Amino acid sequence: MSKSALTLRDATECAYAPMVREPLSIEAAAEIAGKLKALADPVRLRLFSLVASHVGGEACVCDISAGLDVKQPTISHHLKVLKEAGLLASERRSSWVYYSVVPSTLRTLAAVLDVADDGALA
Amino acid sequence: MSKSALTLRDATECAYAPMVREPLSIEAAAEIAGKLKALADPVRLRLFSLVASHVGGEACVCDISAGLDVKQPTISHHLKVLKEAGLLASERRSSWVYYSVVPSTLRTLAAVLDVADDGALA
Repeated sequence: MSKSALTLRDATECAYAPMVREPLSIEAAAEIAGKLKALADPVRLRLFSLVASHVGGEACVCDISAGLDVKQPTISHHLKVLKEAGLLASERRSSWVYYSVVPSTLRTLAAVLDVADDGALA
Repeated sequence: MSKSALTLRDATECAYAPMVREPLSIEAAAEIAGKLKALADPVRLRLFSLVASHVGGEACVCDISAGLDVKQPTISHHLKVLKEAGLLASERRSSWVYYSVVPSTLRTLAAVLDVADDGALA
């Protein structure tokens, strides 16, 4: 990706600078903390990683339940929490609901946590 | 930074691949979720960002308490949680304790959340 394309992507999708560059406002901290909280559960985080890494970038409960030692209602609850936090999107097709990662949300979190290569923390 | 230097840094400091590439193991999910939980509180996250962005990459309670509407014992408690999660390090100098970000921990979290530029989620 060219530098100009990266800059454009950052400008359009990442609302916040890395924390090592500038502190978060009260509003930004509340928004980001809410999304981190949705991921800050071991089972939910693993479930999210199973969806995120699934072939084609999407998965239904049938695809991922085999890899988790939790029952389907629990999985559905966790998927709902991740969806409400804006981390997953869903689409119903016939009798299954397919979940996929919302890239812009993940990109925002990674950008805020990024250790900027500006030498400050090198 | 050259590509080889980046690869070396990733290999030595980031134990986990981005979740969009491969799912987290149970052990990795527990470790990462614990660190995310420490950041998943609005006041604590803002406090962390104040330390991370402070001039020189470190701050004592005296430096950051002015920007937060919470009392010093609460700040000290949050700093302790961040330190226990491996997100902050501390060093005592005369009568003040100075806190600084642990770059490798932040880098690991950003790497796990990274939307790899492999086109899968572009």
